[in-house]
Amino acid sequence: MIKVTFPDGSVREFAKGITGLQLAESISSRLAQEVLAITVNDEIWDLTRPIETDAAIKLHKWDDEEAKHAFWHSSAHLMAEALQELYPGIKFGIGPAIENGFYYDVDPGEVSIKEGDLPVIEAKMLELAQRKEAIVRSDISKADALKRFGDIGEVYKTEMIEALEDGKITLYTQGNFTDLCRGPHLPNTGDIKAIKVLSVAGAYWRGDEKRKMLTRLYGITFPKKKMLDEYLVLLEEAKKRDHRKIGKELELFMFSEMVGKGLPMWLPRGTALRLRLEDFLKKIQRRFDYQQVMTPHIGNKQLYVTSGHYAKYGKDSFQPIHTPEEGEEYLLKPMNCPHHCEIYKFKPRSYKELPVRLAEFGTVYRYEQSGELHGLTRVRSFTQDDAHIFCRPDQVKDEFLKVMDIIFIIFNALEFENFEAQISLRDPNNREKYIGSDENWEKAEQSIIEACAEKGLKARVETGEAAFYGPKLDFMVRDAIGRKWQLGTIQVDYNLPERFELEYTGEDNQKHRPVMIHRAPFGSMERFVAVLIEHTAGKFPLWLTPDQVVILPISEKFNDYAFQIAKEMNAQDIRVQVDDRNEKIGRKIRDNELKRIPYMLIVGEKEAENGEVSVRRQGEGDKGTMKVADFSKLILDEVDSLVNQYNK
Amino acid sequence: MIKVTFPDGSVREFAKGITGLQLAESISSRLAQEVLAITVNDEIWDLTRPIETDAAIKLHKWDDEEAKHAFWHSSAHLMAEALQELYPGIKFGIGPAIENGFYYDVDPGEVSIKEGDLPVIEAKMLELAQRKEAIVRSDISKADALKRFGDIGEVYKTEMIEALEDGKITLYTQGNFTDLCRGPHLPNTGDIKAIKVLSVAGAYWRGDEKRKMLTRLYGITFPKKKMLDEYLVLLEEAKKRDHRKIGKELELFMFSEMVGKGLPMWLPRGTALRLRLEDFLKKIQRRFDYQQVMTPHIGNKQLYVTSGHYAKYGKDSFQPIHTPEEGEEYLLKPMNCPHHCEIYKFKPRSYKELPVRLAEFGTVYRYEQSGELHGLTRVRSFTQDDAHIFCRPDQVKDEFLKVMDIIFIIFNALEFENFEAQISLRDPNNREKYIGSDENWEKAEQSIIEACAEKGLKARVETGEAAFYGPKLDFMVRDAIGRKWQLGTIQVDYNLPERFELEYTGEDNQKHRPVMIHRAPFGSMERFVAVLIEHTAGKFPLWLTPDQVVILPISEKFNDYAFQIAKEMNAQDIRVQVDDRNEKIGRKIRDNELKRIPYMLIVGEKEAENGEVSVRRQGEGDKGTMKVADFSKLILDEVDSLVNQYNK
Repeated sequence: MIKVTFPDGSVREFAKGITGLQLAESISSRLAQEVLAITVNDEIWDLTRPIETDAAIKLHKWDDEEAKHAFWHSSAHLMAEALQELYPGIKFGIGPAIENGFYYDVDPGEVSIKEGDLPVIEAKMLELAQRKEAIVRSDISKADALKRFGDIGEVYKTEMIEALEDGKITLYTQGNFTDLCRGPHLPNTGDIKAIKVLSVAGAYWRGDEKRKMLTRLYGITFPKKKMLDEYLVLLEEAKKRDHRKIGKELELFMFSEMVGKGLPMWLPRGTALRLRLEDFLKKIQRRFDYQQVMTPHIGNKQLYVTSGHYAKYGKDSFQPIHTPEEGEEYLLKPMNCPHHCEIYKFKPRSYKELPVRLAEFGTVYRYEQSGELHGLTRVRSFTQDDAHIFCRPDQVKDEFLKVMDIIFIIFNALEFENFEAQISLRDPNNREKYIGSDENWEKAEQSIIEACAEKGLKARVETGEAAFYGPKLDFMVRDAIGRKWQLGTIQVDYNLPERFELEYTGEDNQKHRPVMIHRAPFGSMERFVAVLIEHTAGKFPLWLTPDQVVILPISEKFNDYAFQIAKEMNAQDIRVQVDDRNEKIGRKIRDNELKRIPYMLIVGEKEAENGEVSVRRQGEGDKGTMKVADFSKLILDEVDSLVNQYNK
Repeated sequence: MIKVTFPDGSVREFAKGITGLQLAESISSRLAQEVLAITVNDEIWDLTRPIETDAAIKLHKWDDEEAKHAFWHSSAHLMAEALQELYPGIKFGIGPAIENGFYYDVDPGEVSIKEGDLPVIEAKMLELAQRKEAIVRSDISKADALKRFGDIGEVYKTEMIEALEDGKITLYTQGNFTDLCRGPHLPNTGDIKAIKVLSVAGAYWRGDEKRKMLTRLYGITFPKKKMLDEYLVLLEEAKKRDHRKIGKELELFMFSEMVGKGLPMWLPRGTALRLRLEDFLKKIQRRFDYQQVMTPHIGNKQLYVTSGHYAKYGKDSFQPIHTPEEGEEYLLKPMNCPHHCEIYKFKPRSYKELPVRLAEFGTVYRYEQSGELHGLTRVRSFTQDDAHIFCRPDQVKDEFLKVMDIIFIIFNALEFENFEAQISLRDPNNREKYIGSDENWEKAEQSIIEACAEKGLKARVETGEAAFYGPKLDFMVRDAIGRKWQLGTIQVDYNLPERFELEYTGEDNQKHRPVMIHRAPFGSMERFVAVLIEHTAGKFPLWLTPDQVVILPISEKFNDYAFQIAKEMNAQDIRVQVDDRNEKIGRKIRDNELKRIPYMLIVGEKEAENGEVSVRRQGEGDKGTMKVADFSKLILDEVDSLVNQYNK
């Protein structure tokens, strides 16, 4: 008999060799139907693998990432099995599960697999799945594995086997297909009910452009047809919301090969939008007693040697800038903290003036491989809405509460209703790897937990996930179509105050080290704007949107009137354009709908005579006719209610 | 006989061999007393040198830079003569005239010359000047010169002679002192009536730190005692206004060796001040239809190869930044124009949408030798209040008029009442060295001249001073103590539109090249703030100053009241502080006077009871007691009258 500990802490005895599937059945047959994988003593296992020793276990249903991973990993094998039937002689590279689905890199030899072939592969996969083949794990020696795959000419597999340690090699087999694989997998291909082969692309073997270009096939699968349908709708919707596409359409930002990869340039409309976001945060920060500073975009190498960043990241970063004479070396700044430490040191500090909160919209530069770059979400230059709070250890909790206030204000104003948080604490069994005193760590961790509780914020606590320099709190938002994005962060730091020898004079007239808190509610302006575009599909909140109003004269006769009232509204800081093209009014309405402008004002003879406008609200249609002044008041009140409520 | 042409164009005949002094005497004896140098056919000459051929001449009195140069150059010789008497065996390096006065680098051997010795040198100079020794020019062969200076051990002079061309070596002698010198000089040391030896410092021979450290003595002289007295007062005043000193006192900006030389960091109060300046300009620019953009601080090397900057400045700039992989090369951007050209190219442009005015507060990086760095006026990173106007050739004049409007608004709001301008045109005899068509140049030059005339701006026209890419208009201001600073600039550019192949579609449906205009009214934020500090001695205009109001409770009992009204005023965007130190009110007033805060509000029992404040205006004293609301209105009205008049 072995002892099995369940997630709720209960312990039950079972016969040695029991499987995950049998454990599930011991609870309920419903659970046995839904379960897809099992964690045994922190390792994810197949449900059919016998458990031979005492173990802590957790059964995984679809909603767990572990279950999805096994599901999609088995689906990759299913696709390989289908390809083997369809393209005899095809050779296989790697086929992992990924965030959404899976892919397999294959070498189909002389044949080429095209977009049009995907439905055929899909159909074959479905046919194989319906055979409900068991997926069976087996061990194999290195020599046998090399022979087995070598005999059938699987050159990529044999190359992989060469690098493996003998005694740790496993195979998975279903029907006629066997793959070199560590698992875990589903018990049976029959769980895979809905299949979509999404796309085909080229991919170098081992990511090395000097080696052969293989064919990469992407797919996704689900245990229910309805889930696939929903996913495909989401995918379609996500495509429409792609911030790169909308950013171009709305003329928000651009990239230029000549300027450099991953270096966004903000176009006038994007700049205006970004500055509105920055101004919004600046105002809030002023209310919370932050002080704005400005620092250069480079720093002497010595600055980063002192901070420790050079030793850790120097090799993989943009390389040092040399001066033409004098032998100096500078680095593009990858973060603003060292500069802010120097500003803290500008003068002696007393406990009375803490917390000192230094804020900067600081543009930083970090090297990313060009293949990793993606629109505004993965760039080489980005602007952090950064601040560093230098405080006493007893002020940490209060500062967390205040930063959380700021983050909630932002999420509210930007209409992110769905967000979650994660508290990362240190590993209590491994205390020596963390810098800072035990007492301070305990106080800070407790402060974060208490602050979340006081704010009623449901935060997942992850032990061992803290950085070596301090515990942290991260915020994730879900956008309008349910995707999760990591945004703001609040981090305690005991390291930099130590390295920069920061001090304040305490009430006891002794020197003390301040605690440093890093925080960025937006994260970065680039990433935040990207998420905002994907969240709103470019229909920004009224206070933020580049154009709030467009005036459509029904004929050229009324252009003068349109420009006149546009000027009046502009003077009131309403962002208004006139569509004075010589086009039919219907055409003008249709064109401007596409531009995502919240208000359209149609003006003709009646309106011009009475000093009025006919108002259409995007998504709501006709709102009737009103005096120009009344409309201005309406829009200004709407903006005020959206923004200024947070600044009162 | 020779023909002499005077500056007014008149021509008179004189006997060959006539001197400048004799020419002056032929006009008036008064002029002969005042004249100090003469320009003969574009060369500056001694007044005693015989004119042997027909010549165009100009006589120089003190107010001309040419006269000052000769005056101070002769004063350097006079100082050398004095040093030779005081320190027998002293050796001489170089002794030039500089912007304000002169210096001489000397090697006094075993002796060392100290601050305390300066009055003695001064007295000796005065004694020698009163001997009214003639300063006599003579030619010498290279061999004779080497022998003459070699015999007396003048090693620095002989080193200089080695590098000279035989037949072009001249000496100047006064009394017992002879120097190797090209001149020109005064006729007589007697003109030097007032002398100040200012300071002593070390300076490497030839500026080479591997060679001997010589002693550099700085001095200044004047033709009248009163002028020296005025200068010394100015010098004292300038010291008090030194922006580096005030910048530190007012906590506006700082430098850190760790961050890097010449890289200013803006402290909270300086940042707030700078942002107010930027916001002020942003508002004006919005009214003038500028569009704000934001671009990265680096650019691919190719960008600067295309712009031509790399070929021209690459060697002397911060060196390229390499990526750790992929072999890319980036440069810190030394200017924003190439980025803006790329933004212009974001989409096809039509003649109808021109001018496109792209503005950016763009931080740029330019290498300067560390010895050249000076506070905020000579830095390695600075932020230009940059904009590039892309327009049609026929729009140039109108754009100049508009930019001049902006510059005048700024000068007004910052209380620079005294400014001048310079128009730089191309050299009409050397047209091939300029890029762009003849027709466009003529149109642009005419546009600038007309625009200045229309605005009633007195501008000096300098022919041949234009850059190769276009004519320009520069603005110089005089500060409160009369010093001249170069600030804003407006430049036409035909080069970059060509290199970046910028286009617009004309009314004729053909492609045309736009004209580009660079302009920066402040010049750079760093330099402008430095000039502003030196101009105002840190007493900034009310709308701009970091702290507008400080409240001084007469005892701790009234701190609560002080903080309460401070909060009320802060909510109205009045920048107010409370001095709640436990100090006597007299001390508080004195301390706060030093902080240059325009308004002090003193609050005690009577004020707290009646909701009042006792108002003191800096430099004006007691303004009586008033209700808090009345004071708020007073200050807001004052700010409004200073700033918002320009935004109506």
